[in-house]
Amino acid sequence: MRIAGQDYRSIWIDDATGDLRIIDQTELPHRFEIRTLADVSSAAEAIRTMRVRGAPLIGATAAHGMALALARDASDESLSCVREELIATRPTAINLRWAIDRVTEVVSGIPVGERAEAARNEAIEICDEDVACCEAIGNHGLAILEGLAESKAGGPIQILTHCNAGWLATVDWGTALAPIYKAHAAGLGLHIWVDETRPRNQGSRLTAFELREQGIPHTVIVDNAGGHLMQRGLVDAVFVGSDRTTASGDVCNKIGTYLKALSADANDVPFYVALPLSSIDWSIENGLEDIPIEERSPSEVRELTGLDDAGQVARVSLFPEASGAANPAFDVTPARYVTGLLTEYGLCGADRESLTKLRFKQTHQHSIRNPSQRRLHPRPEDSNV
Amino acid sequence: MRIAGQDYRSIWIDDATGDLRIIDQTELPHRFEIRTLADVSSAAEAIRTMRVRGAPLIGATAAHGMALALARDASDESLSCVREELIATRPTAINLRWAIDRVTEVVSGIPVGERAEAARNEAIEICDEDVACCEAIGNHGLAILEGLAESKAGGPIQILTHCNAGWLATVDWGTALAPIYKAHAAGLGLHIWVDETRPRNQGSRLTAFELREQGIPHTVIVDNAGGHLMQRGLVDAVFVGSDRTTASGDVCNKIGTYLKALSADANDVPFYVALPLSSIDWSIENGLEDIPIEERSPSEVRELTGLDDAGQVARVSLFPEASGAANPAFDVTPARYVTGLLTEYGLCGADRESLTKLRFKQTHQHSIRNPSQRRLHPRPEDSNV
Repeated sequence: MRIAGQDYRSIWIDDATGDLRIIDQTELPHRFEIRTLADVSSAAEAIRTMRVRGAPLIGATAAHGMALALARDASDESLSCVREELIATRPTAINLRWAIDRVTEVVSGIPVGERAEAARNEAIEICDEDVACCEAIGNHGLAILEGLAESKAGGPIQILTHCNAGWLATVDWGTALAPIYKAHAAGLGLHIWVDETRPRNQGSRLTAFELREQGIPHTVIVDNAGGHLMQRGLVDAVFVGSDRTTASGDVCNKIGTYLKALSADANDVPFYVALPLSSIDWSIENGLEDIPIEERSPSEVRELTGLDDAGQVARVSLFPEASGAANPAFDVTPARYVTGLLTEYGLCGADRESLTKLRFKQTHQHSIRNPSQRRLHPRPEDSNV
Repeated sequence: MRIAGQDYRSIWIDDATGDLRIIDQTELPHRFEIRTLADVSSAAEAIRTMRVRGAPLIGATAAHGMALALARDASDESLSCVREELIATRPTAINLRWAIDRVTEVVSGIPVGERAEAARNEAIEICDEDVACCEAIGNHGLAILEGLAESKAGGPIQILTHCNAGWLATVDWGTALAPIYKAHAAGLGLHIWVDETRPRNQGSRLTAFELREQGIPHTVIVDNAGGHLMQRGLVDAVFVGSDRTTASGDVCNKIGTYLKALSADANDVPFYVALPLSSIDWSIENGLEDIPIEERSPSEVRELTGLDDAGQVARVSLFPEASGAANPAFDVTPARYVTGLLTEYGLCGADRESLTKLRFKQTHQHSIRNPSQRRLHPRPEDSNV
């Protein structure tokens, strides 16, 4: 994606220095800061503090973190240690473990001396595949938006989105926003309702930033407003991402997604969840019972950062510490509220049967990007390393 | 209610000076500031800028505002002019118009020279009645909470509330919080989930302040979290207030209420709306079609005030003006999602038949506070002044 006329990915290796670089998303939109991740601890810190976030990008960063660690020490002990350090950073998004398992699989069977390069190549491959995946999601989603445009009397298609599932949440393109970028490029009229997404405001900070940079009409709303807009017929569809989706189609995503799904259901608004298959946890069925929900610091509810009257970045505390705060970071939307799962293989029903078919298709197809022997994503039975 | 050991109402006449005083709610919780409303323009400004807010308190302030205006000029022209100025302050809460009509009714039939005192007495009466109403709501609600406590195996009753419907939203006691204060005084174990209530954070700023002062256990959550908590069985009931309720039981309340109602419905959590009958607009049936929804400034979405690292009150801007923001202040919860309307006459079904019976009862009963000829609330046919 382009920022101020220059192409960026959310994570990349600097051609000149070979350094691993990220955009520090905690500083957006007030400051555009590029950081170098020099070792696995920096990578773990970046994931934990959400300098990088979004399930696909967390996976990509963890893969690169492993490569950084193995470049220093590629022993089995080091491998085991780095896996542990990275897996502990965030519990909910499945891509973290998926990417770590994938790199582990590649390096486990080869001599210690070859592991660093293999891990680095695998991390690069994961990133490139993510870009291809997300672009494919965008193309499949474009067809949905074209359909909405046709069925509308006129005016722009109005999409509501929660949190940030754009290119900043992936390596490029995004999941829920990829169809929007494709539709905008295809000349469809669009208007995006951007949920602020408290407590960390990924909507007003990141999604609005992305849409501004791409010149796509949008309006920021508080998380409370979406139900009202749907009641009034001002939302044609909801597009969100997912941090983990179960084999039966339950969707775990940023806290508040479930409320929007209920409202979409009550008002006959289609509710699409866009995700790469790497976000599906085939080993579980029941999202409410089986997905660990990260509880983050109360300080994220209590404090907010913005620009003060002098234009300086400042943090304010909204209420005294004498009042406690709870901060569950994700919630689960049961499959029955999901109109469809939008994947790199196309639209899929949020139910076990449709997902089983999709998995079969995936297992027996070549990679979207490389028509090689390698699978696009590992099967879960490969993960028991 | 008590703050730091001293009794307060949210609006009162200073015994020593005769001045009309309010607590400036825009400054809470960071500063506790008492302001004097010297004339009707100050009263109108206080309502518009939400120094006072909450349907009952808006009504009480408007009544006092009329008294202030008529003390300067009690002519018919002045009366007409001041009505217009006050009615224009905020469009959604019906109590504003109800209180203005009530004062108008009292002063219209009497000589100009007697109007100022009559208006002042009526404003005082409206305030005293509101206190009695809210305390009655508290007593009726206590029975509901006692029932919840009995049906619970143990642990505190967990109530979720949205916005502020406490004593700061009324003259004293509150609507949705009155039962909580009564239950706390009666020794019931309680824990309150306080919805932050973006954009103006009446939950984390005002409700949390009230609960801290009364020593009631509570936890602040972002507005996104309530659905997740209900899914996990962590909410025994929802209690909210109302800015306007229709004759068929549709409830207009602070933006985001509807999403919590949907979630309560989906998870079999009882959803109670506490309100004085003065918040019922008997002239309308369909909340979605007939209630004007106030659209407030985008700056309320973009900017937030808190304490900076130096402990000073500071305002920060969350995202650039290049992104627009929409700020609908209320939404409508259809009657079918409301378990019951908790009024000064007891619990009432949110349907036309139950409300009609309640209205009949009200019309034929004496005032709760004064067993006089005066009605507790006017009938709508009295409002065509």
